[in-house]
Amino acid sequence: MSVPAANTIKGNVVIGQSGGPTAVINQSLVGVVETLRGKPGIDKILGAIHAVKGITNDQYIELQDIPQDRLDRVAATPSAALGSSRDKPDAEYCKKIFASFEKQNVRYFFYIGGNDSSDTCRIVNDLGRQNGYELRCFHVPKTIDNDLQQNDHTPGFGSAARYVACAFIGDNLDNRSLPGIKLNVIMGRHAGFLTAASVMARQNPEDGPHLIYVPEVAFDEMKFLADVDRVYKKHGRCLIAVSEGISDKHHVPISARLAEAQGHTVERDMHGNVSLSGSGALGDFLSVHIKNNLGKKLRVRADTFGYAQRCFAGCVSPTDAEEARMAGRKAAELALMGDLDGSVAIVRKSDEPYKVEYKRIELSDVAGKTRVLDRKFLLDDNNIDDSFRKYLAPLVGPLPAVELLRVNR
Amino acid sequence: MSVPAANTIKGNVVIGQSGGPTAVINQSLVGVVETLRGKPGIDKILGAIHAVKGITNDQYIELQDIPQDRLDRVAATPSAALGSSRDKPDAEYCKKIFASFEKQNVRYFFYIGGNDSSDTCRIVNDLGRQNGYELRCFHVPKTIDNDLQQNDHTPGFGSAARYVACAFIGDNLDNRSLPGIKLNVIMGRHAGFLTAASVMARQNPEDGPHLIYVPEVAFDEMKFLADVDRVYKKHGRCLIAVSEGISDKHHVPISARLAEAQGHTVERDMHGNVSLSGSGALGDFLSVHIKNNLGKKLRVRADTFGYAQRCFAGCVSPTDAEEARMAGRKAAELALMGDLDGSVAIVRKSDEPYKVEYKRIELSDVAGKTRVLDRKFLLDDNNIDDSFRKYLAPLVGPLPAVELLRVNR
Repeated sequence: MSVPAANTIKGNVVIGQSGGPTAVINQSLVGVVETLRGKPGIDKILGAIHAVKGITNDQYIELQDIPQDRLDRVAATPSAALGSSRDKPDAEYCKKIFASFEKQNVRYFFYIGGNDSSDTCRIVNDLGRQNGYELRCFHVPKTIDNDLQQNDHTPGFGSAARYVACAFIGDNLDNRSLPGIKLNVIMGRHAGFLTAASVMARQNPEDGPHLIYVPEVAFDEMKFLADVDRVYKKHGRCLIAVSEGISDKHHVPISARLAEAQGHTVERDMHGNVSLSGSGALGDFLSVHIKNNLGKKLRVRADTFGYAQRCFAGCVSPTDAEEARMAGRKAAELALMGDLDGSVAIVRKSDEPYKVEYKRIELSDVAGKTRVLDRKFLLDDNNIDDSFRKYLAPLVGPLPAVELLRVNR
Repeated sequence: MSVPAANTIKGNVVIGQSGGPTAVINQSLVGVVETLRGKPGIDKILGAIHAVKGITNDQYIELQDIPQDRLDRVAATPSAALGSSRDKPDAEYCKKIFASFEKQNVRYFFYIGGNDSSDTCRIVNDLGRQNGYELRCFHVPKTIDNDLQQNDHTPGFGSAARYVACAFIGDNLDNRSLPGIKLNVIMGRHAGFLTAASVMARQNPEDGPHLIYVPEVAFDEMKFLADVDRVYKKHGRCLIAVSEGISDKHHVPISARLAEAQGHTVERDMHGNVSLSGSGALGDFLSVHIKNNLGKKLRVRADTFGYAQRCFAGCVSPTDAEEARMAGRKAAELALMGDLDGSVAIVRKSDEPYKVEYKRIELSDVAGKTRVLDRKFLLDDNNIDDSFRKYLAPLVGPLPAVELLRVNR
């Protein structure tokens, strides 16, 4: 048995993966495991099966003895290898988590997830402090929505943005080839980062998306028609990126309002949020809205990008994969340094060459908070400023090249 | 000016790209151009802008002088570089095509497309023979549906199948991570090849898709519920692949019936087909059907794979790209050989090592005909035989590897 250093505490480790999966969430998991194992004071490294659900049911698997080459293959596999959960623990639930930790002599807790997960971390951490039980809690950032405060960007976003970019590169060419009006509905309930990633498809003059609707800008159905009409008259086609979370000026989600207006049942999740993904309702409504007002004979099509955005196999940003790994490693390093807790944030140091740092932030800096698209990126006429491309380019990695035979369609 | 060989005819070439785009349709275009240019008898190589539409309006661009490196980049770009069209020419329309050819001294006509396109080729070719005007008409196969007769498989299918496989690899892991019932609706009106490609996601025990519904098998809504219930009870989750073209035993498309039942307008294209892509109606209906009958609280989600299936940038099967190029080259070689017309078919010579040949077939062998999934691939309980994986593996290319931490969820 190894002797703990002065600033370490002897005990077991629990790691969980929470919320929607990403293409690189296992990189963070492996980053934690490979950094901790064999270190003084560290005994078992326990993976929580289905996140907090597994913790409250004492369902763990041991990760400390898995060979590195297998870990590397796990890291390169999309989606949460431990299983995930959508449970959002309240104070009572967190007490059960904490009770399991005491029983198992857990002294290190890593929770990979979004802002809800960092809030779970925060509550469990506070329970430890209240009870005088030393527990090192670290949140490791993960979300395709890119909506965590204090972070230049989040692990998982770059690969999802890469998917959106590649889909739009192809769909812009598709729309040139068979001109019409095409809408693509993209994930993002409150933050438009992923929808804005569609601008990466603009590689040549007249390339779409020509119109971009994000949740940060109130959606007006009449303005929308005027926008589409203007673009269609100019280009003879129109490619549109729409966030699933677009809302009217009273913050009523367009999709929820329409779904209910059309007699559909609107599902709400445990967080009270309307469940928007996976339904074609918004795209279909907008298509009908265009046809009813601009012409029944228009060729209008809508696709709703689904779960493929978050873990399509083989569409991984190299930068995203590396940073997700580093975020896990950094959290583990911090936990070994002393009686610390917190979250890891990615801070951009320079654009060219692209360079980031990882810093510890307080759990309260990120827990339960949402970041949205900076105002500077939002242009009139539902467009996104070119500076967003500069921000995004290193995050998605090199994109497939396009060579046209004709500049105009 | 070069002197034509005995078996060539002097004149201009027209190439068109028709129907839905694919990730590799420009490979075939470039295959024709690079084979013909500089050959005796060949003057201008004209690309028809938006296929038959461009021909009847004398809209062409010259392709014979484009440098090879630029052609190579065009070949690697998804979607139809010349622009496409959904027009299905009748006899009158074909007369206009033929008139344009006479006016432009066109002696070689290559039309890259599916079975409708080969029918256009056939009619134009017959007009030439009737009028004693020597015209060498070749159809170059292209369709993500893989539904051309005489072909082991078609250019465009392998890359689309690769997209479906990669999406299902990711979605199977997503569904393991957050268990529930997940439906993915896949393109394919009459043929289930693309939907069946989802089986490539089965890399480990219990992997989905667990149920596969193709147009070749009559869809029964009660049987569907029993299937889903059985799988969900066994695995605690259920991943389902559904073709957009599933129909009941009276050949009524499930989606069209439901769309109309729910008060939606059902669009029909120029071919009289119901326009099914791009609408979430089928997936949403099936979700509601499951919830209404198996439990309101079940986590059920549906995605409708959209146009990304046919030209997502960066998801190209290397075999598909090579074969699409070769099909174009082969058509050009045949046209230079004498007074020939026809289509090019891909014939598989062996599985291991994978090897194909390209042979000339008659236009009437492929024109307007549809191939469907062989009976041998269709298993009871809505499953696809493992032999389909062997058939498909070389066509999609190496797929991303998956490493699990747990065999069970």
